[in-house]
Amino acid sequence: MTISAPETPYIAIELGILQGNIARAAEAARTAGIALRPHVKTHKIIEIARMQEAAGILGITVATLGEAEVFVEAGFPDVFIAYPLWLTPIKAKRLDALLDRATIRMGIDSLESGKKLAEHLRGRASLIELLIEVDCGHHRSGIAPEGVGKLAVGLRDLGLEVSGCFTFPGHSYSVDGRAAAAQDEARALSHAQEQLVAAGFPDANIVSGGSTPSLAEADASVVTEQRPGVYVFNDAQQIELGSCDWDDVALTVHGTVVSVRGSRVIVDAGSKVLGADKAPYASGYGRVLGQPDARIVALSEHHATIEFPEGYAPVLGDVLPVIPNHVCNTVNLADEVFVFDRGVVVDRWKVAARGRNS
Amino acid sequence: MTISAPETPYIAIELGILQGNIARAAEAARTAGIALRPHVKTHKIIEIARMQEAAGILGITVATLGEAEVFVEAGFPDVFIAYPLWLTPIKAKRLDALLDRATIRMGIDSLESGKKLAEHLRGRASLIELLIEVDCGHHRSGIAPEGVGKLAVGLRDLGLEVSGCFTFPGHSYSVDGRAAAAQDEARALSHAQEQLVAAGFPDANIVSGGSTPSLAEADASVVTEQRPGVYVFNDAQQIELGSCDWDDVALTVHGTVVSVRGSRVIVDAGSKVLGADKAPYASGYGRVLGQPDARIVALSEHHATIEFPEGYAPVLGDVLPVIPNHVCNTVNLADEVFVFDRGVVVDRWKVAARGRNS
Repeated sequence: MTISAPETPYIAIELGILQGNIARAAEAARTAGIALRPHVKTHKIIEIARMQEAAGILGITVATLGEAEVFVEAGFPDVFIAYPLWLTPIKAKRLDALLDRATIRMGIDSLESGKKLAEHLRGRASLIELLIEVDCGHHRSGIAPEGVGKLAVGLRDLGLEVSGCFTFPGHSYSVDGRAAAAQDEARALSHAQEQLVAAGFPDANIVSGGSTPSLAEADASVVTEQRPGVYVFNDAQQIELGSCDWDDVALTVHGTVVSVRGSRVIVDAGSKVLGADKAPYASGYGRVLGQPDARIVALSEHHATIEFPEGYAPVLGDVLPVIPNHVCNTVNLADEVFVFDRGVVVDRWKVAARGRNS
Repeated sequence: MTISAPETPYIAIELGILQGNIARAAEAARTAGIALRPHVKTHKIIEIARMQEAAGILGITVATLGEAEVFVEAGFPDVFIAYPLWLTPIKAKRLDALLDRATIRMGIDSLESGKKLAEHLRGRASLIELLIEVDCGHHRSGIAPEGVGKLAVGLRDLGLEVSGCFTFPGHSYSVDGRAAAAQDEARALSHAQEQLVAAGFPDANIVSGGSTPSLAEADASVVTEQRPGVYVFNDAQQIELGSCDWDDVALTVHGTVVSVRGSRVIVDAGSKVLGADKAPYASGYGRVLGQPDARIVALSEHHATIEFPEGYAPVLGDVLPVIPNHVCNTVNLADEVFVFDRGVVVDRWKVAARGRNS
């Protein structure tokens, strides 16, 4: 079967690079003695999760019940919903249904959430492995490590099962912040773990951390598993943070040059296909593969405005590979992706969990 | 039939406000003597385009061939693809197919694009009404008004039909920039129109402008039609630019409070449902309806971090209506939206052209 490349803009994945990224992270984790539990919110694609599974993982991580449903349905047996779910009756029923088919872990950062869980799932609630979320400096959800022991006791008193703690060192997404974030992660998780032991939970020994930028800096004396997501594809953020090379970028958006004015060209890959992410440290709205000096200076819904250095400018009709800033949001915009092997389209994969945000 | 509100996060549209926005713009356009050709890329929803049609419009505007296909299929007879399409053989065939069923207009800003059009569609190419795109200060696609006459002659020599000119005053998206952008629009289009008359195109009299922020400032002595999109819903950008009131916001994303630390709360509406847009003038990653002093200080894929002023903080489980910054990208993330009438869900609409980016 021959598959044609579609009309631009579309997402192109280079198979060899994807395979290399997956294999390298699996090998590094083995060497470090840390298990991998990759976050599939990045790709939302069954075929890629299977490749990760084949390379060796402990289980997968998701952000939502909807993502969990898609991957459990596809046969993944061990899923961590790394999110402080607030259970409505309907969400509780969906969570309960998952328990019949897989080992389910859930994030938690409040006693109130535990009460909802106990109320709705009753005796079944103890089947869920709870990981208490700790804030290690990203200041999003999660509690201070000091509070972990007290919360664990409260949850146990509700009949719930506390299995460990987790954190997301999201502040690794800053220039020169990767190593410090990994240290913060280790410090916070270590402190949380001490709290658990002191509160009478010697078996709550899952200590889960990780982000792609901090992956290489993880402290194996503390964390038992890592949950990176972006590493399978990498993106412009990872390039600009220094956590990957250009050659490690497995996903680009192919866009066509539709308008040219000197060194400034318009490509038909806008925010509706790339996503609008632009971190404070970003040089623009993405990068152009093979053109490190080009800058994406503006982004509309269907226009990327790209400035090229003097001496080079694409012409109308050229197809350019654009590297999105934040690949998780890029993939979530597409219903399918196209898989290339050295220039030839060899497959198309459905973004199975696209839009499964609740 | 009773429709339940879904689990958060989801898009909620308040029907009465939507209807009011559509009626008010139609009435204002009638009063000003300017036709409306609304841009349906904002909503991508057949039902809303029908409401716009019923209120009185000249036709609709889209950004892509895929959007045109969805709306022509739904019976809309007059569609302007306001984009400088670069026609591959496949795109040309799709464009050709549309010509059997609707009046099709297309944007153009280069002779090369005209050559592609003439080459692929041959005799049928003249059925397409071409509008030359002019740059009035947004510096995206489009040419300087001075070049319009020459390009029009070149396109005519290819056997193509030049019907007028258009521009997008996108620099109206700046604080205090709305009136100036409308003036730039009028100046550029007026200049372009003079060029067309001087070059022998007295009948190329479609002069198309418009954006939602500049809508009220449009110069009726120059433009014959306006192409606003966002006005049907409005969004946080429009509030912060001063081009709508809070009461005019018809679309919110309902999100649940999942984590609380004092005045800082986490809501489950992240960038995968709101979109990641944050213009330089934005106060944050969106606003909270009814809480003008709250600030969305950070946005992850599934977490909006919201700081509330002292004295008020939501509690776990509260559902908050979040106003996205840029509603066009928000709607493009969802497969369907839920329609409320004074608190009751009365309908659910498919986002029919979601993801139709090519």
